[in-house]
Amino acid sequence: MHTDHLYIRVADRIEQMIAEKVWKTGDRLPSVRMLSKEQGVSLSTAFQAYYLLEGKGMIESRPKSGYYVRIDPALAPDAPAAGKPIVLEHTSSNEEIVTSVYKDFDIGEAVNLSLAAPPPELLPVAKLNKSVVHALRSHKSHCIGYEQIQGNLDLRKQIARMAFNWGGQITPDDIVVTSGCMEALVLCLKAVTKPGDTVAIESPTYFGIFQAIQSLGLKIVEAPTDPTNGVIVDQLEAILDVHDVKVCLFVPNFNNPLGSCMPDDQKKRLVELLTRRQIILIEDDIYGELYFGKHRPRTCKSYDREGIVLQCSSLSKSLAPGYRVGWAIPGPRYLAEVNRLKLIHSVTSATLPQVAMAHFLENGRYEYHLKAMRKALHTQSLRYRQAIQEYFPAGTRMTCPEGGMVLWIELDPHIDAFHLHNEALRRQVSVAPGQMFSVHTQYRHYIRVSYSRLWDAQAEEGIRVLGALVNEMS
Amino acid sequence: MHTDHLYIRVADRIEQMIAEKVWKTGDRLPSVRMLSKEQGVSLSTAFQAYYLLEGKGMIESRPKSGYYVRIDPALAPDAPAAGKPIVLEHTSSNEEIVTSVYKDFDIGEAVNLSLAAPPPELLPVAKLNKSVVHALRSHKSHCIGYEQIQGNLDLRKQIARMAFNWGGQITPDDIVVTSGCMEALVLCLKAVTKPGDTVAIESPTYFGIFQAIQSLGLKIVEAPTDPTNGVIVDQLEAILDVHDVKVCLFVPNFNNPLGSCMPDDQKKRLVELLTRRQIILIEDDIYGELYFGKHRPRTCKSYDREGIVLQCSSLSKSLAPGYRVGWAIPGPRYLAEVNRLKLIHSVTSATLPQVAMAHFLENGRYEYHLKAMRKALHTQSLRYRQAIQEYFPAGTRMTCPEGGMVLWIELDPHIDAFHLHNEALRRQVSVAPGQMFSVHTQYRHYIRVSYSRLWDAQAEEGIRVLGALVNEMS
Repeated sequence: MHTDHLYIRVADRIEQMIAEKVWKTGDRLPSVRMLSKEQGVSLSTAFQAYYLLEGKGMIESRPKSGYYVRIDPALAPDAPAAGKPIVLEHTSSNEEIVTSVYKDFDIGEAVNLSLAAPPPELLPVAKLNKSVVHALRSHKSHCIGYEQIQGNLDLRKQIARMAFNWGGQITPDDIVVTSGCMEALVLCLKAVTKPGDTVAIESPTYFGIFQAIQSLGLKIVEAPTDPTNGVIVDQLEAILDVHDVKVCLFVPNFNNPLGSCMPDDQKKRLVELLTRRQIILIEDDIYGELYFGKHRPRTCKSYDREGIVLQCSSLSKSLAPGYRVGWAIPGPRYLAEVNRLKLIHSVTSATLPQVAMAHFLENGRYEYHLKAMRKALHTQSLRYRQAIQEYFPAGTRMTCPEGGMVLWIELDPHIDAFHLHNEALRRQVSVAPGQMFSVHTQYRHYIRVSYSRLWDAQAEEGIRVLGALVNEMS
Repeated sequence: MHTDHLYIRVADRIEQMIAEKVWKTGDRLPSVRMLSKEQGVSLSTAFQAYYLLEGKGMIESRPKSGYYVRIDPALAPDAPAAGKPIVLEHTSSNEEIVTSVYKDFDIGEAVNLSLAAPPPELLPVAKLNKSVVHALRSHKSHCIGYEQIQGNLDLRKQIARMAFNWGGQITPDDIVVTSGCMEALVLCLKAVTKPGDTVAIESPTYFGIFQAIQSLGLKIVEAPTDPTNGVIVDQLEAILDVHDVKVCLFVPNFNNPLGSCMPDDQKKRLVELLTRRQIILIEDDIYGELYFGKHRPRTCKSYDREGIVLQCSSLSKSLAPGYRVGWAIPGPRYLAEVNRLKLIHSVTSATLPQVAMAHFLENGRYEYHLKAMRKALHTQSLRYRQAIQEYFPAGTRMTCPEGGMVLWIELDPHIDAFHLHNEALRRQVSVAPGQMFSVHTQYRHYIRVSYSRLWDAQAEEGIRVLGALVNEMS
C-alpha cells in the first residue's frame, strides 16, 4: 500500500524475514545504524521500525546489546490475538513509548487524536501573517537583531496586561520570555533545584513534564488527583509529611491529560500549605485561557504572598504552537536566576515571533480569537464525547473537562493501551496511551483522546476504529 | 543629562547619599528588591546601579547578605585615580562581570565595541524579509504549526549542502536544528556528559561556553592556545595525561576572543589524538564561514572517522542573530540522544525563522551575501587595528585574525579591564573586559574589541576614548 509509512514497510520486510526464518528466535538483529544503511532509510525510520515490531511482540530490546528476535511466529501464531494483549512493560519504558508515539508530530495520512495542539483551521492565520509583516516593517532591526534577554518589551507589556484576567498584578519587568512553555518550566526547575531534589507532580501528568524533571537529575513523587478538581490538597499534605519535596510542579487549570481544574479556593489552600512549608510551586498555566465557563479561572500565583510561585505559560495551545512564544513569571526571588539561565542556555528567543505576537495581542485580536476558539473547543469536546459513548463499550469511563483539549478515558483493565496504540496506528489512527502519563504503570489501560482536531467524518471514523479495537480487546 | 541611562541616574543618587553621609562606611544598603520599589525602577536597573557602584569601589557585595558601603569618600577621594586601579576580584566573580557587561544587548547611545554580532547594515534585510513572506505563503500551516522535532526538512537539506564546503558528508537526517548555537552546545554537552565530568576548553574562551558548562555541573580545565593557530595539540596531550577529561569543547575556526584558526593538519592531529584516547570533541564552528582567506577552513568533524565529533553552528554570526537558527550534527552515536533532549527541553524551534532561512539559503543568496560580508569584515578589521595602533600606547599587543569579528588586546599588566570597562561606559563606550573569557584571572589586563560595528567617526571616537583611558591608567 503506497499510503503506508516507510517505517511500516521496513518493519514488514523484517517481519517477513523472521517468518522466512532468515532470523530465528534469539537471533540478534542488525543495529539501528546498520539497518538504516542497509535499507537506505533514516536512523529515525529504522528506530521506528524496531519500535513497531517491539510493540507487536516480535522482537525485544536488550539494554546496551540491541534488538533480538523474540517469538517464533510458527510456534505462536495467535500471540497478538484478542483477549490476550501482550504486556510490554518489561521491554518498553514509558520514555520508549513516548518516543514511539511522538516520533514526529506529523504522522501524514493518519487521524491524529494523540496531539494536543490547536488545529490550524481554528487559528487566525491571515491576521497573524499581517502581524508578521508589520513586525518586519516596524521593528528597528527588522527583527534580524538580538532581542533583549528577558524578551521583547512590547510583548512583555501585553503579557502583563493579560495577567489581570487571572488575578495577577504583574509588570513587564517580572516576565522572562522563553521558547514555549517547556523552556520556561525547564529554566524554572533549574533555578530552584539541584540534582537529587524531589519534585511532586500530579498523577497522571503530561509526559513532557516528567521527562524534563528526570533529565535534570531530579526525583519524582506523584500526588493523587481528582478528575474534576485536580490535586487533592489533604492527600498532598500527607505526601509532604513523608517525602522531602522541594518543589511542586502542577497544572491547576485544565491539567493534561485529566482536564481537571482546581477550584479557586483550593488553589488558595494549596498556596497557603506550600508557603507554610516553604515549598516552591511551579505553576504551568498553559491551558488557563481555554475555559468553557463564564470566567477565567484564577492561578495559584494570584494567591502568592511570599514569592513561592513561579508561573509558566505560552501561546502554543491557544494561538500558534510553531511560534514558540512562552514565558515565565518567576517572582522577585528567582527572576534574576531564571533570566541568567535563559541567557546561558539559549541567549534569547527568536525576535520575529515575539514582535509579531506583541502586535497581535496589542489590538484585541487575541481576545476576539479566544472567544471563538473556546466555543469551538467546547462544542468539539461534546461531539467527541458523544461519539466515544456511541462506539466504545458501555460503561467506558471518561472525563468531562471544563476547558483544555483532551479527554482521559479508562478502558477495561486487561487492555494494554500501547498495544491499542500500535494496532490503531496500523489502521491510520493515532491515540496517546496512558503509559505516557506516569512514571509508574497504573495508567496502562487508559488513553488520552485529544478533541482539538476538527470534528468531521474522518474524526468519527477514527473514534469508530478505536472503539472497535477496544471492543475486540475487552 | 537626559542621555544617561536610568541605572546610572539611580547610582548617582545613591552615590550622593553616601557623599551626604546618609549611608556611611559599613552601612548595609537596601536590598535590590527594596531599591527597585523605592526608586520605582526595574529589578535589573536596581542591580545595574549596584554593579556600577561596585565597579567604582563605592560599595561591596557580601554573599547572602547584600550590599554595603565600602569607602568613605571623604577619606579616600583619589581611590579610582590613575595608576591605582581598584582590584575587584574579591567582590566580582567573572560571572558577575559578564552579567554587568551584558545586562542587555541594547546599550542605547553608547558605541558598542563589546558585542560580537553582525551589524544590521551588513545584512540582507530586504531579501530576508522576502523569504519570510514567502514562508508565510508557501508553508502548509503558514508556519503556525509545530515543526518536526529535528527541524524543518528543507532547512536541513540546505545545511547538509553547506557541509560540503567544510569537507563534510552530511545528510539532512544527521542534523538537529536548534535555537542558535548555544542551545546546540548545551544539548550536545548534556548528551555526552553527566554532572561532575570534566570538559577541556580553550584559554581564553567565550564566556557563554564556560557558563553553560558550569550550569550543567561540569568541571573545566583550560587548554593553552596560540593566538594564531589555536589549541596547541602537544600541550593539550600533556593536560589529558593529568586530567580525566571526558569532552573537549573547542572553537577551532576563528575562536572568540582569540580569532585564532587551527591549521587543517592540526585539526587532523587533534581528532586522531582524541580518537585514540576516546575523548569526545564538541566543535563550535559558528565563525567558520567568516574567513578572509581564499578557502573555507575545514572542520575537525571532517576528519572524524569514529563518530567522536559533535559539530555545532548557527546563522547568528553570519546572517541573522535574532532568527535563532542553529544546529547540531551529533553523529550516529549521539543523534538520537540530542534529538530526545531537544524535544524535552524546548519541543521544537520556531517554525517561521526556519522556513524563511531554508528559502533564503536555497537560491544562492547566502553565498552571495557571505562574499560581501567577508570582504567588509576584513576591511573593518584592518581599520580598527590601525586606529588602535594610533590611539593606544605604543607596544600594545593585539591579534591579527584571519576571520571572525574580534580583536584580542593585551594591555599594561596594571590595568584592570573591568575598571576600564566601567570608566569607558561612563563615556558611552562599551568594551568586553578580559575577565569575561576565563574562569581564572589571567586575562585581567586584556580586552576584546569587536570590529563588527561599521567603521565611522563614532567608532573612531570610541577607540580614541578607550585609548585615552588606557594611557591614563598605564
